Amino acid sequence: MKKIAVVLSGSGFLDGAEIQESVITMLSLDRAGASYQCMAPDMDQMHVVNHFTGEVAEGEQRNVLVEAARIARTQIIDIASANPNEYDAVIFPGGYGAAKNLSNFAVKGAGSTVQEDVLQFSRAFAATGKPMGFVCIAPAMIPTIYGADAKLTIGSDAETAAAINEMGGVHVNCPVDEFVVDEERNLVSTPAYMLDMRISEVASGIEKLIHKIIEMTHGK
Amino acid sequence: MKKIAVVLSGSGFLDGAEIQESVITMLSLDRAGASYQCMAPDMDQMHVVNHFTGEVAEGEQRNVLVEAARIARTQIIDIASANPNEYDAVIFPGGYGAAKNLSNFAVKGAGSTVQEDVLQFSRAFAATGKPMGFVCIAPAMIPTIYGADAKLTIGSDAETAAAINEMGGVHVNCPVDEFVVDEERNLVSTPAYMLDMRISEVASGIEKLIHKIIEMTHGK
Repeated sequence: MKKIAVVLSGSGFLDGAEIQESVITMLSLDRAGASYQCMAPDMDQMHVVNHFTGEVAEGEQRNVLVEAARIARTQIIDIASANPNEYDAVIFPGGYGAAKNLSNFAVKGAGSTVQEDVLQFSRAFAATGKPMGFVCIAPAMIPTIYGADAKLTIGSDAETAAAINEMGGVHVNCPVDEFVVDEERNLVSTPAYMLDMRISEVASGIEKLIHKIIEMTHGK
Repeated sequence: MKKIAVVLSGSGFLDGAEIQESVITMLSLDRAGASYQCMAPDMDQMHVVNHFTGEVAEGEQRNVLVEAARIARTQIIDIASANPNEYDAVIFPGGYGAAKNLSNFAVKGAGSTVQEDVLQFSRAFAATGKPMGFVCIAPAMIPTIYGADAKLTIGSDAETAAAINEMGGVHVNCPVDEFVVDEERNLVSTPAYMLDMRISEVASGIEKLIHKIIEMTHGK
Protein backbone atom coordinates (compact mmCIF):
# COMPACT_ATOMS: atom_id res chain seq x y z
CA MET A 1 0.00 0.00 0.00
CA LYS A 2 1.35 3.42 -0.98
CA LYS A 3 1.88 5.84 1.92
CA ILE A 4 1.21 9.51 1.24
CA ALA A 5 2.12 12.52 3.42
CA VAL A 6 -0.59 15.22 3.64
CA VAL A 7 0.84 18.53 4.88
CA LEU A 8 -1.75 20.69 6.66
CA SER A 9 -1.41 24.36 7.69
CA GLY A 10 -4.08 24.77 10.39
CA SER A 11 -7.87 24.38 10.12
CA GLY A 12 -9.93 27.01 8.28
CA PHE A 13 -9.20 28.62 4.92
CA LEU A 14 -8.68 32.21 6.14
CA ASP A 15 -5.84 31.41 8.58
CA GLY A 16 -5.07 27.71 8.02
CA ALA A 17 -5.71 24.72 5.75
CA GLU A 18 -8.77 24.82 3.51
CA ILE A 19 -10.92 22.25 5.34
CA GLN A 20 -12.91 21.01 2.35
CA GLU A 21 -9.81 20.59 0.16
CA SER A 22 -8.05 18.73 3.00
CA VAL A 23 -10.93 16.30 3.58
CA ILE A 24 -11.41 15.69 -0.16
CA THR A 25 -7.67 14.94 -0.41
CA MET A 26 -7.88 12.34 2.40
CA LEU A 27 -11.07 10.79 1.01
CA SER A 28 -9.59 10.56 -2.50
CA LEU A 29 -6.41 8.92 -1.18
CA ASP A 30 -8.36 6.37 0.87
CA ARG A 31 -10.65 5.60 -2.08
CA ALA A 32 -7.57 5.15 -4.30
CA GLY A 33 -6.34 2.47 -1.88
CA ALA A 34 -3.48 4.56 -0.46
CA SER A 35 -2.80 5.22 3.22
CA TYR A 36 -1.98 8.73 4.40
CA GLN A 37 -0.22 10.46 7.27
CA CYS A 38 -1.17 14.03 8.12
CA MET A 39 1.61 16.35 9.32
CA ALA A 40 2.04 20.05 10.09
CA PRO A 41 4.66 22.38 11.55
CA ASP A 42 4.55 22.94 15.34
CA MET A 43 4.36 26.76 15.30
CA ASP A 44 2.03 29.67 16.01
CA GLN A 45 -0.32 30.66 13.22
CA MET A 46 0.43 34.03 11.58
CA HIS A 47 -2.90 35.13 13.11
CA VAL A 48 -6.42 33.92 13.88
CA VAL A 49 -9.31 35.01 11.64
CA ASN A 50 -12.94 34.94 12.81
CA HIS A 51 -14.48 32.96 9.92
CA PHE A 52 -17.99 34.31 10.64
CA THR A 53 -17.02 37.99 10.30
CA GLY A 54 -13.87 37.53 8.18
CA GLU A 55 -11.96 39.82 10.54
CA VAL A 56 -8.70 39.15 12.38
CA ALA A 57 -9.33 38.09 16.00
CA GLU A 58 -6.91 40.47 17.73
CA GLY A 59 -4.98 38.99 20.64
CA GLU A 60 -5.98 35.40 19.86
CA GLN A 61 -3.29 32.83 19.07
CA ARG A 62 -3.49 29.21 17.85
CA ASN A 63 -0.92 26.55 16.96
CA VAL A 64 -0.81 25.18 13.38
CA LEU A 65 -0.21 21.53 14.40
CA VAL A 66 -2.87 21.58 17.15
CA GLU A 67 -5.53 23.10 14.86
CA ALA A 68 -4.63 20.83 11.92
CA ALA A 69 -5.28 17.89 14.28
CA ARG A 70 -8.99 18.84 14.11
CA ILE A 71 -9.09 17.86 10.42
CA ALA A 72 -6.85 14.81 10.96
CA ARG A 73 -8.93 13.48 13.89
CA THR A 74 -5.78 13.57 16.14
CA GLN A 75 -3.81 11.33 13.69
CA ILE A 76 -1.09 13.84 12.90
CA ILE A 77 2.66 14.31 13.46
CA ASP A 78 5.05 17.26 13.63
CA ILE A 79 6.59 17.65 10.15
CA ALA A 80 9.98 18.26 11.86
CA SER A 81 9.92 14.59 12.97
CA ALA A 82 8.76 13.18 9.59
CA ASN A 83 11.17 11.09 7.50
CA PRO A 84 10.80 11.86 3.75
CA ASN A 85 12.03 8.35 2.89
CA GLU A 86 8.92 6.80 4.48
CA TYR A 87 6.53 8.32 1.93
CA ASP A 88 5.70 7.56 -1.71
CA ALA A 89 4.22 11.00 -2.36
CA VAL A 90 3.40 14.30 -0.63
CA ILE A 91 0.24 16.41 -1.02
CA PHE A 92 -0.19 20.04 0.10
CA PRO A 93 -3.88 21.06 0.32
CA GLY A 94 -4.49 24.82 0.08
CA GLY A 95 -6.05 27.56 2.18
CA TYR A 96 -4.38 30.81 3.28
CA GLY A 97 -2.45 28.72 5.83
CA ALA A 98 -0.16 27.61 2.98
CA ALA A 99 0.61 31.29 2.30
CA LYS A 100 0.53 32.54 5.92
CA ASN A 101 1.97 29.66 7.97
CA LEU A 102 3.78 27.16 5.68
CA SER A 103 5.19 30.17 3.82
CA ASN A 104 4.81 33.95 3.98
CA PHE A 105 3.65 34.33 0.36
CA ALA A 106 0.46 36.16 1.46
CA VAL A 107 2.63 38.92 2.96
CA LYS A 108 5.86 38.87 0.93
CA GLY A 109 4.68 37.72 -2.53
CA ALA A 110 7.65 37.20 -4.87
CA GLY A 111 10.04 37.76 -1.93
CA SER A 112 8.49 34.96 0.15
CA THR A 113 10.20 32.11 1.97
CA VAL A 114 8.96 28.69 3.15
CA GLN A 115 8.85 27.77 6.87
CA GLU A 116 12.08 25.98 7.87
CA ASP A 117 10.69 22.53 8.86
CA VAL A 118 8.39 22.45 5.85
CA LEU A 119 11.21 23.48 3.51
CA GLN A 120 13.61 20.87 4.88
CA PHE A 121 11.06 18.03 4.52
CA SER A 122 9.82 19.05 1.09
CA ARG A 123 13.26 19.81 -0.41
CA ALA A 124 14.52 16.43 0.79
CA PHE A 125 11.45 14.78 -0.71
CA ALA A 126 11.75 16.69 -4.00
CA ALA A 127 15.36 15.51 -4.28
CA THR A 128 14.13 11.88 -4.40
CA GLY A 129 12.14 12.64 -7.58
CA LYS A 130 9.00 11.10 -6.05
CA PRO A 131 5.71 12.90 -6.85
CA MET A 132 4.33 15.92 -5.02
CA GLY A 133 0.88 17.48 -5.43
CA PHE A 134 -0.04 21.10 -4.62
CA VAL A 135 -3.61 22.42 -4.32
CA CYS A 136 -5.07 25.97 -4.48
CA ILE A 137 -2.47 28.57 -3.30
CA ALA A 138 0.04 25.92 -2.09
CA PRO A 139 1.80 25.90 -5.52
CA ALA A 140 3.18 29.35 -4.62
CA MET A 141 5.77 27.40 -2.56
CA ILE A 142 6.98 25.39 -5.58
CA PRO A 143 9.66 27.84 -6.83
CA THR A 144 11.23 27.95 -3.34
CA ILE A 145 11.15 24.14 -2.99
CA TYR A 146 12.13 23.15 -6.55
CA GLY A 147 14.09 26.16 -7.83
CA ALA A 148 13.55 27.79 -11.22
CA ASP A 149 11.49 26.60 -14.21
CA ALA A 150 9.00 24.31 -12.44
CA LYS A 151 5.62 24.27 -14.22
CA LEU A 152 2.54 24.85 -12.05
CA THR A 153 -0.93 26.42 -11.73
CA ILE A 154 -2.87 28.44 -9.17
CA GLY A 155 -5.78 28.83 -11.63
CA SER A 156 -5.88 32.15 -13.47
CA ASP A 157 -5.28 35.01 -11.02
CA ALA A 158 -2.91 37.30 -12.96
CA GLU A 159 -1.31 39.03 -9.96
CA THR A 160 -0.57 35.77 -8.11
CA ALA A 161 0.72 34.15 -11.31
CA ALA A 162 3.03 37.13 -11.94
CA ALA A 163 4.52 36.88 -8.43
CA ILE A 164 5.12 33.13 -8.93
CA ASN A 165 6.77 33.73 -12.32
CA GLU A 166 8.97 36.43 -10.74
CA MET A 167 10.17 33.75 -8.28
CA GLY A 168 11.20 31.54 -11.23
CA GLY A 169 8.04 29.45 -11.59
CA VAL A 170 6.28 28.84 -14.91
CA HIS A 171 2.59 29.51 -14.36
CA VAL A 172 0.02 27.86 -16.64
CA ASN A 173 -3.68 28.84 -16.49
CA CYS A 174 -5.95 25.90 -15.60
CA PRO A 175 -9.69 25.36 -14.95
CA VAL A 176 -10.98 24.08 -11.58
CA ASP A 177 -11.62 20.49 -12.72
CA GLU A 178 -8.21 19.96 -14.34
CA PHE A 179 -4.56 19.91 -13.23
CA VAL A 180 -1.12 20.85 -14.53
CA VAL A 181 1.79 18.37 -14.60
CA ASP A 182 5.51 19.08 -14.61
CA GLU A 183 6.59 15.70 -16.00
CA GLU A 184 10.29 16.33 -15.42
CA ARG A 185 9.78 16.95 -11.68
CA ASN A 186 6.78 14.62 -11.07
CA LEU A 187 4.94 17.68 -9.86
CA VAL A 188 1.14 18.13 -10.08
CA SER A 189 -1.01 21.19 -9.19
CA THR A 190 -4.73 22.07 -9.35
CA PRO A 191 -6.49 25.43 -8.64
CA ALA A 192 -9.36 24.20 -6.37
CA TYR A 193 -10.78 27.16 -4.37
CA MET A 194 -8.39 29.66 -6.02
CA LEU A 195 -11.27 29.58 -8.53
CA ASP A 196 -14.32 30.16 -6.37
CA MET A 197 -16.48 27.28 -7.63
CA ARG A 198 -18.83 24.63 -6.25
CA ILE A 199 -17.44 22.02 -3.86
CA SER A 200 -18.13 19.24 -6.40
CA GLU A 201 -16.03 21.05 -9.04
CA VAL A 202 -13.19 21.55 -6.55
CA ALA A 203 -13.46 17.84 -5.64
CA SER A 204 -13.26 16.86 -9.29
CA GLY A 205 -9.90 18.66 -9.75
CA ILE A 206 -8.44 17.27 -6.51
CA GLU A 207 -9.54 13.70 -7.32
CA LYS A 208 -7.85 13.93 -10.72
CA LEU A 209 -4.67 15.25 -9.07
CA ILE A 210 -4.70 12.36 -6.57
CA HIS A 211 -5.20 9.77 -9.32
CA LYS A 212 -2.30 11.26 -11.28
CA ILE A 213 -0.08 11.25 -8.17
CA ILE A 214 -0.94 7.59 -7.37
CA GLU A 215 -0.21 6.67 -11.00
CA MET A 216 3.18 8.39 -10.65
CA THR A 217 4.00 6.39 -7.49
CA HIS A 218 3.68 3.28 -9.69
CA GLY A 219 6.23 4.72 -12.09
CA LYS A 220 3.76 5.49 -14.90
CA MET B 1 -33.30 22.88 -6.92
CA LYS B 2 -33.83 21.37 -3.46
CA LYS B 3 -32.48 23.46 -0.57
CA ILE B 4 -31.07 21.58 2.41
CA ALA B 5 -30.16 22.93 5.86
CA VAL B 6 -26.90 21.52 7.32
CA VAL B 7 -26.71 22.08 11.08
CA LEU B 8 -23.12 22.31 12.39
CA SER B 9 -21.95 22.25 16.01
CA GLY B 10 -18.46 23.79 15.83
CA SER B 11 -15.36 22.54 13.99
CA GLY B 12 -13.48 19.48 15.28
CA PHE B 13 -14.93 16.16 16.43
CA LEU B 14 -13.87 16.36 20.11
CA ASP B 15 -15.65 19.66 20.88
CA GLY B 16 -17.63 20.48 17.71
CA ALA B 17 -18.82 19.12 14.38
CA GLU B 18 -16.96 16.13 12.91
CA ILE B 19 -15.15 17.93 10.07
CA GLN B 20 -14.91 14.97 7.67
CA GLU B 21 -18.59 14.05 8.09
CA SER B 22 -19.60 17.70 7.56
CA VAL B 23 -17.56 18.09 4.36
CA ILE B 24 -18.75 14.73 2.98
CA THR B 25 -22.35 15.83 3.68
CA MET B 26 -21.85 19.08 1.73
CA LEU B 27 -20.04 17.34 -1.14
CA SER B 28 -22.74 14.65 -1.39
CA LEU B 29 -25.52 17.27 -1.46
CA ASP B 30 -23.78 19.31 -4.16
CA ARG B 31 -23.14 16.18 -6.23
CA ALA B 32 -26.79 15.21 -5.85
CA GLY B 33 -27.75 18.57 -7.40
CA ALA B 34 -29.09 20.10 -4.18
CA SER B 35 -28.08 23.43 -2.67
CA TYR B 36 -27.32 23.72 1.03
CA GLN B 37 -27.25 26.34 3.76
CA CYS B 38 -25.04 25.78 6.80
CA MET B 39 -26.34 27.00 10.16
CA ALA B 40 -25.33 26.72 13.82
CA PRO B 41 -26.38 28.14 17.19
CA ASP B 42 -24.68 31.38 18.31
CA MET B 43 -23.40 30.16 21.70
CA ASP B 44 -20.23 29.27 23.58
CA GLN B 45 -18.93 25.73 23.10
CA MET B 46 -19.21 23.46 26.17
CA HIS B 47 -15.41 23.53 26.16
CA VAL B 48 -12.39 23.56 23.84
CA VAL B 49 -10.39 20.34 23.35
CA ASN B 50 -6.78 20.36 22.10
CA HIS B 51 -7.11 17.86 19.22
CA PHE B 52 -3.37 17.07 19.23
CA THR B 53 -3.27 15.96 22.88
CA GLY B 54 -6.97 15.10 23.31
CA GLU B 55 -7.05 17.13 26.53
CA VAL B 56 -9.41 19.96 27.48
CA ALA B 57 -7.78 23.37 26.90
CA GLU B 58 -8.53 24.96 30.27
CA GLY B 59 -9.56 28.61 30.16
CA GLU B 60 -10.04 28.68 26.38
CA GLN B 61 -13.46 29.52 24.94
CA ARG B 62 -14.82 29.43 21.38
CA ASN B 63 -18.20 30.17 19.78
CA VAL B 64 -20.07 27.35 17.97
CA LEU B 65 -21.28 29.53 15.05
CA VAL B 66 -17.89 31.23 14.57
CA GLU B 67 -15.99 27.92 14.53
CA ALA B 68 -18.57 26.19 12.30
CA ALA B 69 -17.97 29.00 9.79
CA ARG B 70 -14.50 27.45 9.20
CA ILE B 71 -16.11 24.37 7.66
CA ALA B 72 -18.76 26.43 5.83
CA ARG B 73 -16.22 28.88 4.32
CA THR B 74 -18.10 31.81 5.99
CA GLN B 75 -21.40 30.84 4.28
CA ILE B 76 -23.35 30.19 7.48
CA ILE B 77 -26.28 31.67 9.42
CA ASP B 78 -27.44 31.66 13.04
CA ILE B 79 -30.01 28.85 13.38
CA ALA B 80 -32.14 31.22 15.51
CA SER B 81 -32.73 33.29 12.35
CA ALA B 82 -33.44 30.31 10.06
CA ASN B 83 -36.95 29.74 8.70
CA PRO B 84 -37.83 26.01 8.62
CA ASN B 85 -40.26 26.61 5.73
CA GLU B 86 -37.40 27.58 3.42
CA TYR B 87 -35.82 24.12 3.46
CA ASP B 88 -36.71 20.79 1.83
CA ALA B 89 -34.65 18.74 4.29
CA VAL B 90 -32.30 19.11 7.26
CA ILE B 91 -29.05 17.19 7.93
CA PHE B 92 -27.19 17.01 11.25
CA PRO B 93 -23.56 15.81 10.80
CA GLY B 94 -22.00 14.29 13.95
CA GLY B 95 -19.05 14.93 16.21
CA TYR B 96 -19.14 15.46 19.97
CA GLY B 97 -20.46 18.97 19.26
CA ALA B 98 -23.88 17.39 18.64
CA ALA B 99 -23.73 15.91 22.17
CA LYS B 100 -21.90 18.80 23.89
CA ASN B 101 -23.24 21.95 22.16
CA LEU B 102 -26.43 21.16 20.20
CA SER B 103 -27.49 18.98 23.13
CA ASN B 104 -25.99 17.90 26.46
CA PHE B 105 -26.25 14.15 25.75
CA ALA B 106 -22.48 13.67 26.38
CA VAL B 107 -22.99 14.86 29.97
CA LYS B 108 -26.61 13.99 30.80
CA GLY B 109 -27.24 10.84 28.73
CA ALA B 110 -30.88 9.75 28.98
CA GLY B 111 -31.67 12.96 30.90
CA SER B 112 -30.36 15.21 28.12
CA THR B 113 -32.01 18.22 26.49
CA VAL B 114 -31.49 19.94 23.11
CA GLN B 115 -30.23 23.56 22.88
CA GLU B 116 -33.22 25.94 22.65
CA ASP B 117 -32.64 27.46 19.16
CA VAL B 118 -31.80 24.05 17.69
CA LEU B 119 -34.86 22.47 19.30
CA GLN B 120 -37.21 25.20 18.07
CA PHE B 121 -35.95 24.95 14.47
CA SER B 122 -35.87 21.17 14.34
CA ARG B 123 -39.24 20.60 16.07
CA ALA B 124 -40.88 23.06 13.68
CA PHE B 125 -39.24 21.28 10.76
CA ALA B 126 -40.19 17.81 12.06
CA ALA B 127 -43.82 18.98 12.30
CA THR B 128 -43.86 19.57 8.52
CA GLY B 129 -43.09 15.88 7.90
CA LYS B 130 -40.21 16.78 5.56
CA PRO B 131 -37.10 14.56 5.81
CA MET B 132 -34.31 14.91 8.35
CA GLY B 133 -30.99 13.06 8.37
CA PHE B 134 -28.80 12.45 11.46
CA VAL B 135 -25.18 11.27 11.35
CA CYS B 136 -22.92 9.64 14.00
CA ILE B 137 -23.98 10.72 17.54
CA ALA B 138 -26.49 13.36 16.30
CA PRO B 139 -29.36 10.76 16.36
CA ALA B 140 -29.20 10.97 20.19
CA MET B 141 -31.25 14.19 19.75
CA ILE B 142 -34.06 12.39 17.87
CA PRO B 143 -36.16 11.33 20.91
CA THR B 144 -36.16 14.94 22.19
CA ILE B 145 -37.07 16.36 18.77
CA TYR B 146 -39.60 13.71 17.62
CA GLY B 147 -40.90 12.24 20.88
CA ALA B 148 -41.24 8.51 21.57
CA ASP B 149 -40.93 5.54 19.20
CA ALA B 150 -38.74 7.08 16.47
CA LYS B 151 -36.47 4.48 14.83
CA LEU B 152 -32.78 5.37 14.58
CA THR B 153 -29.17 4.15 14.73
CA ILE B 154 -25.91 5.32 16.25
CA GLY B 155 -24.17 2.11 15.11
CA SER B 156 -23.79 -0.58 17.75
CA ASP B 157 -22.54 0.97 21.01
CA ALA B 158 -24.69 -0.75 23.66
CA GLU B 159 -24.45 1.93 26.36
CA THR B 160 -25.33 4.79 23.99
CA ALA B 161 -28.16 2.74 22.46
CA ALA B 162 -29.55 1.97 25.94
CA ALA B 163 -29.60 5.68 26.88
CA ILE B 164 -31.41 6.51 23.63
CA ASN B 165 -33.98 3.75 24.22
CA GLU B 166 -34.50 5.04 27.76
CA MET B 167 -35.41 8.41 26.21
CA GLY B 168 -38.08 6.69 24.09
CA GLY B 169 -36.06 6.05 20.94
CA VAL B 170 -35.98 2.70 19.14
CA HIS B 171 -32.34 1.91 18.44
CA VAL B 172 -31.44 -0.44 15.57
CA ASN B 173 -27.85 -1.70 15.06
CA CYS B 174 -26.39 -0.70 11.69
CA PRO B 175 -23.03 -1.06 9.87
CA VAL B 176 -21.00 2.01 8.81
CA ASP B 177 -21.92 1.83 5.11
CA GLU B 178 -25.68 1.54 5.65
CA PHE B 179 -28.48 3.65 7.17
CA VAL B 180 -31.71 3.19 9.12
CA VAL B 181 -35.01 4.73 7.96
CA ASP B 182 -38.07 5.62 10.02
CA GLU B 183 -40.56 5.67 7.13
CA GLU B 184 -43.38 7.12 9.20
CA ARG B 185 -41.34 10.17 10.21
CA ASN B 186 -39.14 10.53 7.06
CA LEU B 187 -36.16 10.18 9.35
CA VAL B 188 -32.79 8.71 8.28
CA SER B 189 -29.67 7.98 10.37
CA THR B 190 -26.21 6.47 9.74
CA PRO B 191 -23.41 5.60 12.24
CA ALA B 192 -20.39 7.18 10.43
CA TYR B 193 -17.51 7.71 12.92
CA MET B 194 -19.50 6.16 15.82
CA LEU B 195 -17.95 3.07 14.23
CA ASP B 196 -14.28 3.96 13.95
CA MET B 197 -13.72 3.03 10.31
CA ARG B 198 -11.93 4.37 7.24
CA ILE B 199 -13.01 7.72 5.79
CA SER B 200 -14.18 6.01 2.58
CA GLU B 201 -16.51 3.71 4.57
CA VAL B 202 -17.89 6.67 6.53
CA ALA B 203 -18.41 8.50 3.21
CA SER B 204 -20.26 5.53 1.78
CA GLY B 205 -22.84 5.59 4.60
CA ILE B 206 -23.29 9.37 4.46
CA GLU B 207 -23.70 9.36 0.66
CA LYS B 208 -26.41 6.70 0.92
CA LEU B 209 -28.18 8.76 3.61
CA ILE B 210 -28.04 11.88 1.41
CA HIS B 211 -29.41 10.00 -1.62
CA LYS B 212 -32.27 8.65 0.52
CA ILE B 213 -33.02 12.12 1.88
CA ILE B 214 -33.05 13.68 -1.63
CA GLU B 215 -35.34 10.85 -2.80
CA MET B 216 -37.68 11.67 0.11
CA THR B 217 -37.77 15.38 -0.87
CA HIS B 218 -39.23 14.20 -4.19
CA GLY B 219 -41.96 12.33 -2.30
CA LYS B 220 -40.62 8.83 -3.00
